[in-house]
Amino acid sequence: MNGSRYDILFEPVQIGPVTAKNRFYQVPHCNGMGHRAPSGMAAMRRVKAEGGWAVVCTEVCEIHPSADISPHNEARLWDDRDIPALARAADAIHEFDSLAGVELGHHGFRAQNRISREIPLGPSSHTVVSYDPVQSRAMDKEDIRNLRRWHAAAARRAKQAGFDLIYVYAAHGLTTPMQFLSRRYNQRTDEYGGSLENRARLLRELIEETKDAVGDTCAVPVRICVDELVGPAGLCSDGEGRDLIEMLADLPDLWDVTVGDWSNDSRPSRFGEEAVHEDYVSFVKQVTSKPVVSVGRFTSPDTMVSQVRRGVLDMVGAARPSIADPYLPNKIKEGRLDDIRECIGCNICAAADNTYTPIRCTQNPTMGEEWRRNWHPELIPARESQDRVLVVGAGPAGLECAVSLGKRGYEVALAEATTELGGRVLREPLLPGLSAWGRVRDYRLGQLHQLANVEIYMDSHMSADEILGAEFDRVVLATGSSWRRDGVARYHRTPLAGLDEKAIYTPDDIMAGRIPTGPTVVFDDDHYYMGGVIAEKLRDLGLDVTLVTPAPVVSGWTANTLEQPRIQKRLLDKGVTIVANQGLVGFSDQAAKLACAFTGRETTIEANSVVMVTSRTSHDSVYNALAAMGDQVRDAGIKSFSRIGDSLAPGTIAAAVFSGHRYAREFEKPESDEVPFLREVSELGPWSARN
Amino acid sequence: MNGSRYDILFEPVQIGPVTAKNRFYQVPHCNGMGHRAPSGMAAMRRVKAEGGWAVVCTEVCEIHPSADISPHNEARLWDDRDIPALARAADAIHEFDSLAGVELGHHGFRAQNRISREIPLGPSSHTVVSYDPVQSRAMDKEDIRNLRRWHAAAARRAKQAGFDLIYVYAAHGLTTPMQFLSRRYNQRTDEYGGSLENRARLLRELIEETKDAVGDTCAVPVRICVDELVGPAGLCSDGEGRDLIEMLADLPDLWDVTVGDWSNDSRPSRFGEEAVHEDYVSFVKQVTSKPVVSVGRFTSPDTMVSQVRRGVLDMVGAARPSIADPYLPNKIKEGRLDDIRECIGCNICAAADNTYTPIRCTQNPTMGEEWRRNWHPELIPARESQDRVLVVGAGPAGLECAVSLGKRGYEVALAEATTELGGRVLREPLLPGLSAWGRVRDYRLGQLHQLANVEIYMDSHMSADEILGAEFDRVVLATGSSWRRDGVARYHRTPLAGLDEKAIYTPDDIMAGRIPTGPTVVFDDDHYYMGGVIAEKLRDLGLDVTLVTPAPVVSGWTANTLEQPRIQKRLLDKGVTIVANQGLVGFSDQAAKLACAFTGRETTIEANSVVMVTSRTSHDSVYNALAAMGDQVRDAGIKSFSRIGDSLAPGTIAAAVFSGHRYAREFEKPESDEVPFLREVSELGPWSARN
Repeated sequence: MNGSRYDILFEPVQIGPVTAKNRFYQVPHCNGMGHRAPSGMAAMRRVKAEGGWAVVCTEVCEIHPSADISPHNEARLWDDRDIPALARAADAIHEFDSLAGVELGHHGFRAQNRISREIPLGPSSHTVVSYDPVQSRAMDKEDIRNLRRWHAAAARRAKQAGFDLIYVYAAHGLTTPMQFLSRRYNQRTDEYGGSLENRARLLRELIEETKDAVGDTCAVPVRICVDELVGPAGLCSDGEGRDLIEMLADLPDLWDVTVGDWSNDSRPSRFGEEAVHEDYVSFVKQVTSKPVVSVGRFTSPDTMVSQVRRGVLDMVGAARPSIADPYLPNKIKEGRLDDIRECIGCNICAAADNTYTPIRCTQNPTMGEEWRRNWHPELIPARESQDRVLVVGAGPAGLECAVSLGKRGYEVALAEATTELGGRVLREPLLPGLSAWGRVRDYRLGQLHQLANVEIYMDSHMSADEILGAEFDRVVLATGSSWRRDGVARYHRTPLAGLDEKAIYTPDDIMAGRIPTGPTVVFDDDHYYMGGVIAEKLRDLGLDVTLVTPAPVVSGWTANTLEQPRIQKRLLDKGVTIVANQGLVGFSDQAAKLACAFTGRETTIEANSVVMVTSRTSHDSVYNALAAMGDQVRDAGIKSFSRIGDSLAPGTIAAAVFSGHRYAREFEKPESDEVPFLREVSELGPWSARN
Repeated sequence: MNGSRYDILFEPVQIGPVTAKNRFYQVPHCNGMGHRAPSGMAAMRRVKAEGGWAVVCTEVCEIHPSADISPHNEARLWDDRDIPALARAADAIHEFDSLAGVELGHHGFRAQNRISREIPLGPSSHTVVSYDPVQSRAMDKEDIRNLRRWHAAAARRAKQAGFDLIYVYAAHGLTTPMQFLSRRYNQRTDEYGGSLENRARLLRELIEETKDAVGDTCAVPVRICVDELVGPAGLCSDGEGRDLIEMLADLPDLWDVTVGDWSNDSRPSRFGEEAVHEDYVSFVKQVTSKPVVSVGRFTSPDTMVSQVRRGVLDMVGAARPSIADPYLPNKIKEGRLDDIRECIGCNICAAADNTYTPIRCTQNPTMGEEWRRNWHPELIPARESQDRVLVVGAGPAGLECAVSLGKRGYEVALAEATTELGGRVLREPLLPGLSAWGRVRDYRLGQLHQLANVEIYMDSHMSADEILGAEFDRVVLATGSSWRRDGVARYHRTPLAGLDEKAIYTPDDIMAGRIPTGPTVVFDDDHYYMGGVIAEKLRDLGLDVTLVTPAPVVSGWTANTLEQPRIQKRLLDKGVTIVANQGLVGFSDQAAKLACAFTGRETTIEANSVVMVTSRTSHDSVYNALAAMGDQVRDAGIKSFSRIGDSLAPGTIAAAVFSGHRYAREFEKPESDEVPFLREVSELGPWSARN
């Protein structure tokens, strides 16, 4: 692609003593594997290098037991014993001439030290940020000397592990040097407190000492927060954030620039577009000669080029886009723009880390499965037979299944009952804030168009009998699910009696355009995004909306996707009434009866209608009909019939895509009781009862 | 102690093919280590066997990847690879002629399967209990056959690992056979649903097949829930719970009887006394000839004898009492009743599991540290020098430190500024519901009285100058902390301006008897127990109390100690007004100004007084004075001076006790950058980038 308008993205960039082969920079990002699953982590990073990222970094790396942020599974360099695990990642990244970066971190009063039981350290004595009953102590001079020594020792270990970029991390409010920087946290009266110069002293020392320790062969980037988004009370890009960069302008080898905390840095698509940070970040290049990298959920090569040409960034930083598509750089290089799996900004990746789970991705079902299932985002084994496969239903599971089977070379028929492909990833992106989620459909339709061996049949409802007559070897049912109308989820495990059914709605009704009138209760016992989205939509339509939930907050699980506080704020700002900690226990005669989740005390609110956002029922009637047919199915030449996605068990879109992909990967595999993936278990060290 | 009234507790009990040497039975309990820290878990179990428990069980043991309850760190027998880790525990338990038990579990729709990504299984399709966006699918006949095969396979692995008791687990709502039992969860229409006999079919099959698999040499106990505490909608001890035991009466080798979910089974002392379950449990022995065990936070040998003599129980079950004192049986046997460290029912042990942390205990600072720090609850190394140690302050840290140094043989002086020993464990047990917490003080005072080498000085405030003149080699400051008056904690990181200070109170004021009048706001930004307890106390005194918190619930962290819903219910029942998701942003002219934690929107409520339950300030003035003296201290012959407990950093009582104990264990140890404990890290398995 020489001469392409994207060539500028493939120019090398000097970073201190090392050279990045192009401008694609996978910034450090957590992944729920870390020190707990070192081979899984290494293989995941490796595929990024393989896909063309010039720099591939680890997640944050705890440098000391006093920086213990367990149960988050991050990297660790507490001592030499941790070197081999990280060397595995560095080696894997080097296989493709990419640079390996490691983000050393000391977490100050963000470390609860649950495992180590050390007292957290900080510029001043603070409660930790979580509700753990733990306070830090203010570091004395010896503590500061210790921290500097630990950091240098960790840098030397990182160099020994083979890393090319060794970070000083002062961003996201997460680390000690950042906590020293911020007026909110630093109440010291010595030479490490007071003026910005004083508050920056620790950061300066860490940069200098890291360069002293490893700077001969390693670059020392600094990940910095230029704006805490709290105005002049904190760092801000037209105040101390700018002053700080000016002060330390050319000291690090690269500036990795962030804005706000993690939930802002990884802004969900529901609350921010591509390149959302530009206004905060753009000053940095004006005050330093060192390369500047920052993120903005960049998936458009034109946006990337614009950022570079206009002098905003030298390198295109990415975490989520590199997760959704590890091959993003190579695809741009090869002009395969239609093959890019664009990040949808759902932050299910962040949720994995926040639930201490190996990373997963809605768009990329192989994410986190590279090592343990030997899955690759771009390679899939060729077919093992001439079997012809019928996939029934073109929602996320069916689409992914058909695409993946098609790539394997199977003859596939994809039968969709309606006149449009996509199922829930057609309908849900029309809800407020979810338009980017349509990329799940877009990518797969784009791939289908390239697969001559996949035939699509629209408007084709398939009954069990029709399936029997259709002459396929394998049948996969991806027929989706419907929201329940009877209130069953967590609060009620059996159907709620006496409901005024005429006035009961579900999210399916709303998406189909069946909209209630008058005061409406949205009963959310689902706790992911749907309850909040439905409330927002109805409110936007002018309804008087009360969201009732047995949980203490709206859309509680979205705390994991970094969305919850923004969702609740948006609903409140729009005038939705939120009634938390209450179960809906009845609805008739225009009265919704509620019961306190703690005391059971009942109250009543007036409502014309109730939208039940509770749980879902799989569409499994065709499956059950086939199952009931017994030998008839085999007699019709069908070797197997299976369910995938929501028709097997309702779940996330990510789970549906994974389910479809897994079917395509594994459908020849015989049933087995073996664990279907490689495991990384704790070493059984030497035993001595009284050591 | 032959002829003692406790002899009955030391009679052997036949359990199927094995014999327990006495009636002390450590029931299965989680510990936050599990498969993640197999040596830590084994050493912790070993010390229970050493302390005289005839039966020592593991935590629940996942039998299959579809029973994956990560991030909880429980035991695992997914395949043969897990056998060695569990064999380590069984071997360790056998060293002392105790029987080793393992609690096999399949978690049905309680398993989110975060690691395995399998679809949860259940009697019917249900959302999982957590907010994870995951639903189970209803098991078909093949699924049921599979589950039975997996269970039998796990039982054989458990036998191979050396266990003597191999459980079928149907309690706490946590496992599939229990979910089949309960009408709430089982909506099946086949022979596994409907009548109790049908709903019990899976349990019966599992018991029979486990006996077939391993019953020749292993006992097969069943852990059962006899009452779900939801009335006839679930199992209840005067209904289906009783019918069930009658139906299966002599099928298992032992009944391990539980009541309600885990939060009821491990009822915190704030909400239940010793032997709280007796009324629910006592029928069981009337309908079975097999031994019956149950729990009730038993720490009194007289209560235990009474339970056995009155035919309530055959074996005294314990989880928490065995954590607080692994030597409980031996101490009873030896007549050392005053040496028993009685469980205080604070449930900090449960909080460890719920925060994915190795178990800890307020009373027993060695809990969870047996292997990694080589700490033993009853043994401590003899002194290494003739150093004389001054301990200043007799709160939990100072008491534990003085006792442990005393046991090591050091000459210790314990100087207490007031006229009573105990510090916060003297004051806090006087607050509503916390009386059992006074056992932290009681145990240590009892030990001090046995230590001739520890001298106690009451009414002895020690200034830095006095310490210098006191002629000690070592000085330990355990001077505690005070609650802040300025609002600083999580919501405010810097002091709140413009407060009407005359009307501001803290928990210290309340505990000292300085009580506000009129409408009072309790501002809780601490989130552990204190805010709720202070609100309860003031309400009990007749005040009009509003608890304001930036968190969505009261005492949010106590969800981990299994207390939160009961706390909020109690406060609501007593008439405390709860204003959640609000920060206190001002207080003057009898008006408390609040701001919404999401939108910042301000409102005002009338209040005479505000009690700040926010964070604490260490009492470190004496330490700082010594630090400022420089060489003077060494010249006075003082080799070291240190802080422990809340005076180093405010935390839990458990942390204070740990801090005092750690000082006593480690004070001769030179400063070092080494990780101060053994680690159990993930095995770095064979690497293949494309395996």
